[in-house]
Amino acid sequence: MKQYIQENKERFFEELFSLLRIPSVSSLEQHKPDMAACAERLVELLKEAGADEAGVYPTAGHPVVFGQKLIDPSLPTVLVYGHYDVQPVDPIELWHSDPFEPEIRDGAIYARGANDDKGQLFMHIKAFEFLVRTGALKHNVKFILEGEEEIGSPSLAAWATENKDLLAADIILVSDTTMISESVPSINCGMRGLSYVEVKVTGPNKDLHSGHYGGAVANPINVLCDMISSLIDKDGHVTVKGFYDDVVELSAEDRAKLSRAPFDLHEYKEFLDIKEVKGEAGYSTLERTGIRPCLDVNGIWGGYIGEGAKTVLPSVAHAKISMRLVPNQDSATITRLFEEHFKAIAPDYVKVEVKPHHGGDGFLIPISSPAYKAAEKAMTEVYGIEPVPSRGGGSIPILADLQRILGIDPLLMGFGLERDTIHSPNESYLLKQLFAGMESIVLFYKYY
Amino acid sequence: MKQYIQENKERFFEELFSLLRIPSVSSLEQHKPDMAACAERLVELLKEAGADEAGVYPTAGHPVVFGQKLIDPSLPTVLVYGHYDVQPVDPIELWHSDPFEPEIRDGAIYARGANDDKGQLFMHIKAFEFLVRTGALKHNVKFILEGEEEIGSPSLAAWATENKDLLAADIILVSDTTMISESVPSINCGMRGLSYVEVKVTGPNKDLHSGHYGGAVANPINVLCDMISSLIDKDGHVTVKGFYDDVVELSAEDRAKLSRAPFDLHEYKEFLDIKEVKGEAGYSTLERTGIRPCLDVNGIWGGYIGEGAKTVLPSVAHAKISMRLVPNQDSATITRLFEEHFKAIAPDYVKVEVKPHHGGDGFLIPISSPAYKAAEKAMTEVYGIEPVPSRGGGSIPILADLQRILGIDPLLMGFGLERDTIHSPNESYLLKQLFAGMESIVLFYKYY
Repeated sequence: MKQYIQENKERFFEELFSLLRIPSVSSLEQHKPDMAACAERLVELLKEAGADEAGVYPTAGHPVVFGQKLIDPSLPTVLVYGHYDVQPVDPIELWHSDPFEPEIRDGAIYARGANDDKGQLFMHIKAFEFLVRTGALKHNVKFILEGEEEIGSPSLAAWATENKDLLAADIILVSDTTMISESVPSINCGMRGLSYVEVKVTGPNKDLHSGHYGGAVANPINVLCDMISSLIDKDGHVTVKGFYDDVVELSAEDRAKLSRAPFDLHEYKEFLDIKEVKGEAGYSTLERTGIRPCLDVNGIWGGYIGEGAKTVLPSVAHAKISMRLVPNQDSATITRLFEEHFKAIAPDYVKVEVKPHHGGDGFLIPISSPAYKAAEKAMTEVYGIEPVPSRGGGSIPILADLQRILGIDPLLMGFGLERDTIHSPNESYLLKQLFAGMESIVLFYKYY
Repeated sequence: MKQYIQENKERFFEELFSLLRIPSVSSLEQHKPDMAACAERLVELLKEAGADEAGVYPTAGHPVVFGQKLIDPSLPTVLVYGHYDVQPVDPIELWHSDPFEPEIRDGAIYARGANDDKGQLFMHIKAFEFLVRTGALKHNVKFILEGEEEIGSPSLAAWATENKDLLAADIILVSDTTMISESVPSINCGMRGLSYVEVKVTGPNKDLHSGHYGGAVANPINVLCDMISSLIDKDGHVTVKGFYDDVVELSAEDRAKLSRAPFDLHEYKEFLDIKEVKGEAGYSTLERTGIRPCLDVNGIWGGYIGEGAKTVLPSVAHAKISMRLVPNQDSATITRLFEEHFKAIAPDYVKVEVKPHHGGDGFLIPISSPAYKAAEKAMTEVYGIEPVPSRGGGSIPILADLQRILGIDPLLMGFGLERDTIHSPNESYLLKQLFAGMESIVLFYKYY
């Protein structure tokens, strides 16, 4: 594969850039045509790579792309999952180059989606192309590429249920996560779930002059701050009633195993430029993101947020709040518990609304499975070092759904690095990782 | 004056509307030319009304308009203060008509500035015009109209210090406040001061994926909420260290006098559509806005605030926070105390910045003064009922400065009503009040 990459590098860049140039932001209505264009472009790339059939399939939301090459029903089938939608780009002013005009700088591609997940799914298309063109393909290969991962995959579960036979496979292969570091390759064997809500706190029925009413009428921003502040106690526990009921405590042995993953707290703090970390008492930083649930405010707004000063006592305040869940916590249940709790703690002088956004459950992948073993062997060969099993903090809620609907385990071979700052300005993807990923995937097919 | 209003009503509307059509938003850089245009228009109106001289005077910020008619140095001199700048109009979508295209609906003028303060200062120009044209003027009259009241009058104090002689007068007459209600005319005999700051809380040095970091890294929005929440205790007291040190407690007698102002809590709550009021324990609603200081968040923002969901753990969170102060609290001192306190309570895992916006001191006006008595008599004649002395919650910080610099007491004859929703969408001014204001001012000159 190394040589194939060398010979085809420029074409690879052109093809990947053609995907990255399409602003397929799934959360913004205005990008609907871009979603369709991106799906069509993927169909072309799949066909060019060697898929016998590939097409765009409508769903209730953004379309899915499905493509496949079936060579022999007696051979194992690999279902590649990826997503072609990307996160919004704001704050746009912090980007050093146009998020939708990819640039190679310092050995990395800079663009929204360079890593998440256009860059990573592209590795699978090229690994597949290599296997097809060199006659080395010994698996049936299917691709399911969705356009709604960044908004919680609201349509794919239903589509997968209706097209269960089409998606039948032995393993779901996914590259949409990170490795621990460049020098510590890792394979993700568990991910957190997600519950995401938007809350609205209404005080008076109109914006008021803060001089005339300040001190006498509850300010919804102050109240929202009080309420948010009460959601996490001084030990870092989430106070939502029933929040921890279904959390399975890991055994001391399991915690010891996970703590083998190398981690340098000093480097971590330096990378983020923070003096101290903060989290649940009694757990390490890796445990806090790996095996423990948490609650974060992802956005807050209310009152006057323009330049200068305005003495307003606003009518409403809003926040987007998400909870990361661990396996066995049910996303829908947590969303309901949050809603009940948030309404229960709302004081008399405000009205509150809670609107659920997307969510999803966490899941675990057995380290002893043949697929995990094949990935381990492949990455050991490419990186010259055995990958560590890790528990990722992020969520790909749809994978737990697909696991349940199709009865197939996912395998997460992610090649992203923290430095890629996905979801943030200046998202990037190291060329080194892009190519190592392609090689690892080709070898995965060899050993699986 | 009644008859004069009837005969000139249409011209009055045209003239006032010509002011209201100019979007003189002082806080937004883009409106700088509008500020100049509005100042020029005021000079025209002052000259047409009978001022012997009137002109636009540059300051470090937006210009001031000064005009005067001196008839006899032995006669008392009235200095009319007003401001021609207005608040921003957002949220613009809540306006029922263009904020800068005034409309008369249901007996009121709707436009930004209809009341605050273009509508109210216009009453003074027309009262002055009437006195000049009917030969009834028995005072020297000066007008000082500034363009920076809504941003805290950063330039007027310096200009007034340099032009002390030009501004020499016996009383500063101001209409920039409200009456208790249409049926309860009142004269404001004290106003709260203001300290206004903007805070910024920085956590990690970049936006992070909340899945990868959530639970392990302090989220600046959550931290900001914690910090804001801690600024007011459960009894409604502001916790900023030293905040109440200079507050003078009113005597039981004084509190009893103030409580004579009619107030219907049920109506108040209904007007605001709130179930409960909220404020400092031990004080009534009128006391909370009249004689007690308070703290309000005027704006908050951070993270993803667009449509849909984004799982970001943001790098920064911001808030605009203001404190209303009572006489004897020094605005600069309170701003410093806030800054010290906010930095002291900031936990190790974030950095905080505090940027002071404008501020100003509160002040009191003696009820026994000849000017107050003249106003009382004038309003009693117009409204058929004796006005109540009131303590207003709002702030006109510059008046405390002018009082100090020029050694002249201000008198606040305000004709606004709560229904006018100044600073909010659909600001309005009742024609009834506009005309009653003009009549009251003419009578004030008669009795002063």
